[in-house]
Amino acid sequence: MEIPKFKTLEIFQKSPNPSVFHLILNNPSLKSALSLDFFTEFPKALVSLDQNPNVNVIILSSHGDHFCSGIDLNAFNSIMKSQSDDQGRVRERLRRVIKGLQDAITAVEQCRKVVIASIHGACVGGGIDLITACDIRYCTKNAFFCVKEVDLAITADLGTLQRLPGIVGYGNAVELALTARRFTAEEAKGFGLVSKVFESKSALDEGVYSMAKGIAMKSPLAVIGTKEVLLRSRDMSVDQGLDYAATWNSAMLPSADLTEAISAQMQKRKPTFAKL
Amino acid sequence: MEIPKFKTLEIFQKSPNPSVFHLILNNPSLKSALSLDFFTEFPKALVSLDQNPNVNVIILSSHGDHFCSGIDLNAFNSIMKSQSDDQGRVRERLRRVIKGLQDAITAVEQCRKVVIASIHGACVGGGIDLITACDIRYCTKNAFFCVKEVDLAITADLGTLQRLPGIVGYGNAVELALTARRFTAEEAKGFGLVSKVFESKSALDEGVYSMAKGIAMKSPLAVIGTKEVLLRSRDMSVDQGLDYAATWNSAMLPSADLTEAISAQMQKRKPTFAKL
Amino acid sequence: MEIPKFKTLEIFQKSPNPSVFHLILNNPSLKSALSLDFFTEFPKALVSLDQNPNVNVIILSSHGDHFCSGIDLNAFNSIMKSQSDDQGRVRERLRRVIKGLQDAITAVEQCRKVVIASIHGACVGGGIDLITACDIRYCTKNAFFCVKEVDLAITADLGTLQRLPGIVGYGNAVELALTARRFTAEEAKGFGLVSKVFESKSALDEGVYSMAKGIAMKSPLAVIGTKEVLLRSRDMSVDQGLDYAATWNSAMLPSADLTEAISAQMQKRKPTFAKL
Amino acid sequence: MEIPKFKTLEIFQKSPNPSVFHLILNNPSLKSALSLDFFTEFPKALVSLDQNPNVNVIILSSHGDHFCSGIDLNAFNSIMKSQSDDQGRVRERLRRVIKGLQDAITAVEQCRKVVIASIHGACVGGGIDLITACDIRYCTKNAFFCVKEVDLAITADLGTLQRLPGIVGYGNAVELALTARRFTAEEAKGFGLVSKVFESKSALDEGVYSMAKGIAMKSPLAVIGTKEVLLRSRDMSVDQGLDYAATWNSAMLPSADLTEAISAQMQKRKPTFAKL
Amino acid sequence: MEIPKFKTLEIFQKSPNPSVFHLILNNPSLKSALSLDFFTEFPKALVSLDQNPNVNVIILSSHGDHFCSGIDLNAFNSIMKSQSDDQGRVRERLRRVIKGLQDAITAVEQCRKVVIASIHGACVGGGIDLITACDIRYCTKNAFFCVKEVDLAITADLGTLQRLPGIVGYGNAVELALTARRFTAEEAKGFGLVSKVFESKSALDEGVYSMAKGIAMKSPLAVIGTKEVLLRSRDMSVDQGLDYAATWNSAMLPSADLTEAISAQMQKRKPTFAKL
Amino acid sequence: MEIPKFKTLEIFQKSPNPSVFHLILNNPSLKSALSLDFFTEFPKALVSLDQNPNVNVIILSSHGDHFCSGIDLNAFNSIMKSQSDDQGRVRERLRRVIKGLQDAITAVEQCRKVVIASIHGACVGGGIDLITACDIRYCTKNAFFCVKEVDLAITADLGTLQRLPGIVGYGNAVELALTARRFTAEEAKGFGLVSKVFESKSALDEGVYSMAKGIAMKSPLAVIGTKEVLLRSRDMSVDQGLDYAATWNSAMLPSADLTEAISAQMQKRKPTFAKL
Repeated sequence: MEIPKFKTLEIFQKSPNPSVFHLILNNPSLKSALSLDFFTEFPKALVSLDQNPNVNVIILSSHGDHFCSGIDLNAFNSIMKSQSDDQGRVRERLRRVIKGLQDAITAVEQCRKVVIASIHGACVGGGIDLITACDIRYCTKNAFFCVKEVDLAITADLGTLQRLPGIVGYGNAVELALTARRFTAEEAKGFGLVSKVFESKSALDEGVYSMAKGIAMKSPLAVIGTKEVLLRSRDMSVDQGLDYAATWNSAMLPSADLTEAISAQMQKRKPTFAKL
Repeated sequence: MEIPKFKTLEIFQKSPNPSVFHLILNNPSLKSALSLDFFTEFPKALVSLDQNPNVNVIILSSHGDHFCSGIDLNAFNSIMKSQSDDQGRVRERLRRVIKGLQDAITAVEQCRKVVIASIHGACVGGGIDLITACDIRYCTKNAFFCVKEVDLAITADLGTLQRLPGIVGYGNAVELALTARRFTAEEAKGFGLVSKVFESKSALDEGVYSMAKGIAMKSPLAVIGTKEVLLRSRDMSVDQGLDYAATWNSAMLPSADLTEAISAQMQKRKPTFAKL
Repeated sequence: MEIPKFKTLEIFQKSPNPSVFHLILNNPSLKSALSLDFFTEFPKALVSLDQNPNVNVIILSSHGDHFCSGIDLNAFNSIMKSQSDDQGRVRERLRRVIKGLQDAITAVEQCRKVVIASIHGACVGGGIDLITACDIRYCTKNAFFCVKEVDLAITADLGTLQRLPGIVGYGNAVELALTARRFTAEEAKGFGLVSKVFESKSALDEGVYSMAKGIAMKSPLAVIGTKEVLLRSRDMSVDQGLDYAATWNSAMLPSADLTEAISAQMQKRKPTFAKL
Repeated sequence: MEIPKFKTLEIFQKSPNPSVFHLILNNPSLKSALSLDFFTEFPKALVSLDQNPNVNVIILSSHGDHFCSGIDLNAFNSIMKSQSDDQGRVRERLRRVIKGLQDAITAVEQCRKVVIASIHGACVGGGIDLITACDIRYCTKNAFFCVKEVDLAITADLGTLQRLPGIVGYGNAVELALTARRFTAEEAKGFGLVSKVFESKSALDEGVYSMAKGIAMKSPLAVIGTKEVLLRSRDMSVDQGLDYAATWNSAMLPSADLTEAISAQMQKRKPTFAKL
Repeated sequence: MEIPKFKTLEIFQKSPNPSVFHLILNNPSLKSALSLDFFTEFPKALVSLDQNPNVNVIILSSHGDHFCSGIDLNAFNSIMKSQSDDQGRVRERLRRVIKGLQDAITAVEQCRKVVIASIHGACVGGGIDLITACDIRYCTKNAFFCVKEVDLAITADLGTLQRLPGIVGYGNAVELALTARRFTAEEAKGFGLVSKVFESKSALDEGVYSMAKGIAMKSPLAVIGTKEVLLRSRDMSVDQGLDYAATWNSAMLPSADLTEAISAQMQKRKPTFAKL
Repeated sequence: MEIPKFKTLEIFQKSPNPSVFHLILNNPSLKSALSLDFFTEFPKALVSLDQNPNVNVIILSSHGDHFCSGIDLNAFNSIMKSQSDDQGRVRERLRRVIKGLQDAITAVEQCRKVVIASIHGACVGGGIDLITACDIRYCTKNAFFCVKEVDLAITADLGTLQRLPGIVGYGNAVELALTARRFTAEEAKGFGLVSKVFESKSALDEGVYSMAKGIAMKSPLAVIGTKEVLLRSRDMSVDQGLDYAATWNSAMLPSADLTEAISAQMQKRKPTFAKL
């Protein structure tokens, strides 16, 4: 399956095995700021990776010194600009534009494949929106984070206020969003925002790749099921989530993957799973 | 705008700038126990501060040696006392009385302005109900906390069982509520209940004032938007929360504050925002 | 009240006072793997303990070297086996079987009495489902944990994906469920999964018993109210949870336990409460 | 208990028994248009009637030829007017003003006592918001209804879009709200919006009074319980609603009213209940 | 599969084909009042019918002149009686007893097989709780209905206040529950409470049997899927319900029933489906 | 703005004014069965109409003798066909395919512009899914309806089971879905499924066009606001829906449309609104 080309993103695979793909924000001169093009291309990239049977896990990282410095000023200006004279129409359009940007971020959750954020340097504003939509987050020791929006007179609207509280706790989320203070990799680890802190960018790259490989070699059916059941259960009662999981597994559990996993366990060998 | 006077609360502003107000539990002889008068006056104080354009941030603290020792015995007795002979009417009244007390605590969330709890000494029982409704919590090193109700044969009913799990995690909340054990400032920090621990009362006062100033100098529109969108999103699905945030910003984002913030950033100066 | 006998579980009380009962997984030769019999007997044991007025607190632990190694292979095979030739009927049956297993775990939440998990050695797969349904969790230093399912090509379906995120945060839950990595007692403490780590099995036994005694000596009405209001509020908005708590207490607060607790406090003695 | 006086409302009781009070929109020269004063006075009137032990049932009707012609133009203009130059602040204020008007309508639901709308002539725009918040609706044959807002370039925001679908079905509600067409008393009956259509205003007055008396003579505890459990269950799952009803009745069912009702039934006499 | 015997219920099948079973309230001397035994036996009967592969559809009706006159007085008295002296314990027990009765009614929804209520004569109080939990309702012309509880000083707590609004609309449900007025078969039809009114008991019996046969001859998998997806979707957002339906069908759609249905349609013959 | 061409759909506008567009199912030889192409083209057509400023209202109808006979057999077969040998992968794919079809139907709700279903002849199976997603439904006297799926051994999964209960009541929806019986235009009107029944196809065409014109001449901002607030409120509590409406209007209410509407009313002329 051919890998599409993008202006703001690079996609590549280091080696055909395992099924780990790199999705890289490619805007180093602007500290990986998120441009309008990014918001158009990012969901397309994820759809393409989702449909590509060679992909099991996606590592999201950035070229240059920083993971993401937020939405870029030109993008923001074009979001705010409207051709209508009518304030009602201006705002109706603005609402749709914001919802379009939100959809671009939520595309990470709608991708069945696991998306791991690999963060170094700054992760600020829109960068937080982006990583909170990812499944797992790792970072370097010198990474730093900032829910920056309030400092720009903005109420964050691309997902941070919805997803961060569930990740770091409601109290921590409020404090970070209202003070817009910078916090360190260590703090992020303590909050549960990142799962591990690496000493350097090269250690991060190696470590995340190794984690990604680990997931990529598991049953793809079980991996996407785990992602989807977690996401769906997040917005349901526990009882509803349990029923959903039972219904999911009544469809997906009896599979070649399960047979292979059990047989491999009995034969004390590593299982091999078909592509998804 | 005139500041109202209260029996159980003191309100003052150290200096006209920044827009930080102090709201102080004024019952030191009873370790800042919450009296019936408090439950009447507290929501009034918050409504008054909410409507006062000179107020951006409210610091909630206490006179005396303790932040709050819980509901006072007289208040509790009068809650439980009823004039009816009929058990049905007694309990229907009791339900309304409890809901009235809950509303007094929830007034913190209904105040648009940020409310920061500044805690020293004991924070026990009703004190936990109070601080979990606040936006941010800071404390001194020798502060201590206790979800005390179960030790008084009470199922906590003023908000702790609803708000604490989202702040400290469900498991921690259950353990604290069922054991009623005392926990330290350090533990509270580890749980995410407080955002920072200060060495002394004076360090706390200074530190919280400085944090409060920081928030008070940001765009008031963005600050109240952040508070409200966080609160509303807490009880919605992520999809609903995102739509709400987009709708909110279609109304509130295009503002003088945004223009000023962007212009200040370009001119590398501090922005100044109008009152709310 | 007679204590029923079970194949897969042992129930006993060390001494008539306090009202602490031990419920012990009794399958040491298979590392406390969960058999089909367990899923039948466990909810019956909990119903019996719930109805027994001599029981206030239940300590759930295991004989042998491990807390629980997950569902045993025979149980799993019989879950997957079906007599029907029709794939539709096979899966409709599978869904019901899974829901039956889920109900066995959820029985811990439906038991009014507090259930404390006391964990040593391995707590893996179905063991995580089991402990996340418990009210409080303690473990030994050498305990280890693993959300193992994805390694067996399974999307976890007995509660972990529904309950773990609320306990450890959504980000930590995703990472643990997707990597299936082993994590230590210390990590579990940091995540909020366990409330305390003990040096040894004997320290655990002693410490948990002491905690259990502490809860068992509190007002049973207040204890079960705290458990139930926390559980019910988990799946409601804060406003709904508050109203529920007020309604609950309008029924349960005026009680002999409250009178006794207040009177004991005034007389500076320990209160004594009737059985439930 | 004294009955307060209002500019826009009249409150009176025809005879001390039964406990039926009339609450009358008193603005006949403007076809009972809802003024700003109305929105201030209406919730106060309801709070007063709620607290008055002589009141069991409230009949809401209007002086003059019409039930309600919607919000009056002066009120609307003052809602839209703002003193701020900043569009952000203008809209933040507008949101609060609308929420204040909504609260005035929702006051009908927050009043424990039953509120019956007795409708003749026009019931238009804000009038629909008002009656959909009432518990029961009756009207005359020549009453007519109109969800008028869209014709004034307004998205209805005082409750019709939230409450009407549950009353008349989602499809009917959409059609009525999008076409803003006038519909008759007969249609309203068919939709389930009104429970009975009377031939004339005098028949309506007499009929509604008779219905109100019937409810006023029932157990006040059971009546307010039925209203509250219905309202609370509306926004919950069926399982949550059932648990709420059980918890409610564990508090309120054992009462003098129950004893009296059973004893009256056995003695084949009418029961008499104490005031609330 | 053997059919169990019950004191308060009769179960029988007129002829082995089709898979229609009769479940009959057998308490004609007390107008089919619901006794304590009924609440124990009814869920057992439904579980037995659910598990019996010969059952596709269950017709619920009553011997004697009436469908159901509500909970009988002895049952009610024993519900209210408690051995404890403590009001707290009395009410905690009462809540559990009510929840037990609710579970007996909800057993109709938890039975996978379709349950059709066939109603003649009185359907009052607990009878309404019972029929609103059924899937479809038919009645005779002289049947009458009454949400009676409020006349006995009771807030209905066995399901009517939760299920009736969704069936007849919120407005109709409130009116019926607050007035406790008797309503006719024709009204019930207009409200959507019953699906068809028959001229006589014999016409009802014949008509319902014919409807039941029609459903019993359809694909059992599709029938139970339709029931379950409707029930689950009732308490979810539309988006969640759609996702649930897709997940359900990914498991249950590819089946022998589907193959048979399509093949029968092509061959223009009636399909025959295996038992469930 | 150019109107795209489709194989399965025709789009046209009778006259430039008013802004009413026709969207016509163009598959008369197969009784307007829904093909795979339809599911691809339909959402594209709606997106195009949504973005087209000349469109205010869309009338959805069909060429030939019937509105819609459901999904066509070829489409269905290709849905069920899979290239994988693994049952797990087959079903994971099936779930995604069904979700794709659902999205095509839900596109009607995601289109801001009003969509009116104009129904004649058969409306069966997938046709019901389609019309329940529309905003308003009208039909001819000889139209007939059937929730057909269960007769084909299918649990309906394209929206009927989620949307129909809110439109016709839960009881009616269950009866129609379980019996799969044909129901008439008059019944559909009584259920609230259609808003008006016309004598003939030409009367329908004329009548619906006239209704559509009426809506098309109203404020487009108010019309799309009404549609969106109704849809969003459907899945929220009443309190959340009210807050959403207030927030929406704080953005959209102050508009040129409002000014024009008020000014037109004062000048007793018809208002004219700008395109959206």
